[in-house]
Amino acid sequence: MDDERFQRGLATLGRLDPQGWEYLQNGLEDIAPDLARHAVEFAFGDILSRPGLDLKSREIATLAALTALGHAIPQLEWHVGAALNVGLSRQEVVEVIMQMAVYAGFPASLNAMQAARRVFAQRDQEGRQP
Amino acid sequence: MDDERFQRGLATLGRLDPQGWEYLQNGLEDIAPDLARHAVEFAFGDILSRPGLDLKSREIATLAALTALGHAIPQLEWHVGAALNVGLSRQEVVEVIMQMAVYAGFPASLNAMQAARRVFAQRDQEGRQP
Amino acid sequence: MDDERFQRGLATLGRLDPQGWEYLQNGLEDIAPDLARHAVEFAFGDILSRPGLDLKSREIATLAALTALGHAIPQLEWHVGAALNVGLSRQEVVEVIMQMAVYAGFPASLNAMQAARRVFAQRDQEGRQP
Amino acid sequence: MDDERFQRGLATLGRLDPQGWEYLQNGLEDIAPDLARHAVEFAFGDILSRPGLDLKSREIATLAALTALGHAIPQLEWHVGAALNVGLSRQEVVEVIMQMAVYAGFPASLNAMQAARRVFAQRDQEGRQP
Amino acid sequence: MDDERFQRGLATLGRLDPQGWEYLQNGLEDIAPDLARHAVEFAFGDILSRPGLDLKSREIATLAALTALGHAIPQLEWHVGAALNVGLSRQEVVEVIMQMAVYAGFPASLNAMQAARRVFAQRDQEGRQP
Amino acid sequence: MDDERFQRGLATLGRLDPQGWEYLQNGLEDIAPDLARHAVEFAFGDILSRPGLDLKSREIATLAALTALGHAIPQLEWHVGAALNVGLSRQEVVEVIMQMAVYAGFPASLNAMQAARRVFAQRDQEGRQP
Repeated sequence: MDDERFQRGLATLGRLDPQGWEYLQNGLEDIAPDLARHAVEFAFGDILSRPGLDLKSREIATLAALTALGHAIPQLEWHVGAALNVGLSRQEVVEVIMQMAVYAGFPASLNAMQAARRVFAQRDQEGRQP
Repeated sequence: MDDERFQRGLATLGRLDPQGWEYLQNGLEDIAPDLARHAVEFAFGDILSRPGLDLKSREIATLAALTALGHAIPQLEWHVGAALNVGLSRQEVVEVIMQMAVYAGFPASLNAMQAARRVFAQRDQEGRQP
Repeated sequence: MDDERFQRGLATLGRLDPQGWEYLQNGLEDIAPDLARHAVEFAFGDILSRPGLDLKSREIATLAALTALGHAIPQLEWHVGAALNVGLSRQEVVEVIMQMAVYAGFPASLNAMQAARRVFAQRDQEGRQP
Repeated sequence: MDDERFQRGLATLGRLDPQGWEYLQNGLEDIAPDLARHAVEFAFGDILSRPGLDLKSREIATLAALTALGHAIPQLEWHVGAALNVGLSRQEVVEVIMQMAVYAGFPASLNAMQAARRVFAQRDQEGRQP
Repeated sequence: MDDERFQRGLATLGRLDPQGWEYLQNGLEDIAPDLARHAVEFAFGDILSRPGLDLKSREIATLAALTALGHAIPQLEWHVGAALNVGLSRQEVVEVIMQMAVYAGFPASLNAMQAARRVFAQRDQEGRQP
Repeated sequence: MDDERFQRGLATLGRLDPQGWEYLQNGLEDIAPDLARHAVEFAFGDILSRPGLDLKSREIATLAALTALGHAIPQLEWHVGAALNVGLSRQEVVEVIMQMAVYAGFPASLNAMQAARRVFAQRDQEGRQP
């Protein structure tokens, strides 16, 4: 275990979603626990924790990429929540996704918007802001 | 011609690249001039000019998406320059592209980084900052 | 509101699906009503309404693209219905989707075929022709 | 009917999944039976039956490609089972999918891993090994 | 060799491009001649030769798909020529590619348009119509 | 610097291509040296060095994925050479790429085959085997 990278990744992951590690681990511990660890160490610890770009900007980049890829709806849903948790407004999330109609086409944008809509509805139901 | 949308698009396009309209038109006027016009009116006039997200953040989203798509290197090169023109630092551009290794894989990130490198070299040669 | 473009888009959208605007609006009015409006004005009003290619041919192009993209199943289902509504036969829809096995691979073609199958079954249940 | 190619394809398909032809036909016989036939003749008969690469290696290639494509989850599930049927271990399947985090990004890898997990769980429930 | 399929494929390929087989073979004979043969037998012989959709409509579908995929510029260039050879007008080719801005985003459409432009310029230089 | 992971990655990278680190660094040292380091530590050190799947099988997976992605031609060329260096035959490389016609379509397969062809020709010119 690479403790420093793991701890740094866990801290960044926790800012994005306090239940993030639990969520990631639940889906992987019985099949590929190392993939969960690499996600924390590399994705969250090495890359998303880098200085040089604030976490809000990094979430804008991630929302845009996941929308454009088209095949990453579960990850997009998680990052819509994460983006709100680190300070993006719902309107900013909507703007990023809408902008992708230009670069990745309307279907990618429309499907991502429905994912955001589900996340917003879930948060409304839980009385969470934003 | 939809003059208000076109003028608004032209203004936003000009902030991203003063030669933007000339560049777009050169590539399309003899084959599909309407596509150039729709790019200005819809992409730059309707979407990128929207309030609710500043132009720097919009460029972060675009750089991320074009990197993730993988097939949009000419557009990525143009947007690397545009991103610098509206206030992103070279380091921020590099950070967005590097982050895409997580979401779209290393090849997409590496190819986009080479595109950014060409743009940086060109600007160095022209003595432009940043 | 850009009334002329909106009305033109609404007319083309209505030819493809009399409930099209209602469907589009239902999914977006509480999160991104402007995206619904841009879909009508730009996609249906500016592009699909252009002369130079008939609507049947345009639906062939759209079915092919949505099949090849792979991530656009909800839009593909809608366009299968739209294609039938503007005069393509079920066999022609099947031919376009089957052809995509050559250009985008069998998985994209197979998944699109299942989408078409669901639409055909739904129309059979509703007693609609074709 | 191209009997030699069909029989050769059926044999290879049967090694991957004894119910393979039934499964393929069920999904296509009422809409595009020729696509099922071409899948057997071309995909399984012409390509997967070629000498020069053993079937285990071919399944590694297929699992990698379907993971990277991102839009081929139903086919990936089928091929996870097929890969196990021709001698890959569960761990090898997991390794191929995990490796795709490097080349296609974490979302593609994570979604494919969940697909593999469903297949493993189904086989556990049926008491099948591996 | 599967002579009937090969001959049928060769005939359809020849309608799309009289030098088609020569071109295909040149690129593959020293590395993968069977891939050239399968392209003729399966792609052109089994699929593009099917009744149920005329060759002009099939080329519309192919141009749309290759534009949307984004990574298929050499094949797109060949099919722009093929589409003109079987009776599409240059304007119809342009319309299909422009429409892809809606479904696959502007970058895919813009890059495909440049490919079409190169083909048109080449044909002008050779004095070919259309 | 994470020395153990870096050294392990360097060793695996060196097996794939003795000049691999030099090549990677040349393209990144003046723009994103950390991306080169992460490629070594994460891609080669954490993932490709994992037990549970031999390096030849891992290269089969990578060739398949890079072919299917379509936008990763420079990486594909490097991995064709790497695959040969760790013991795949040219024929096996060709088989993997040809198989991708089934899963990702003929254009992706054809473009990858041309990339392999360039690598084979380069090695012939340098008198390298295989």
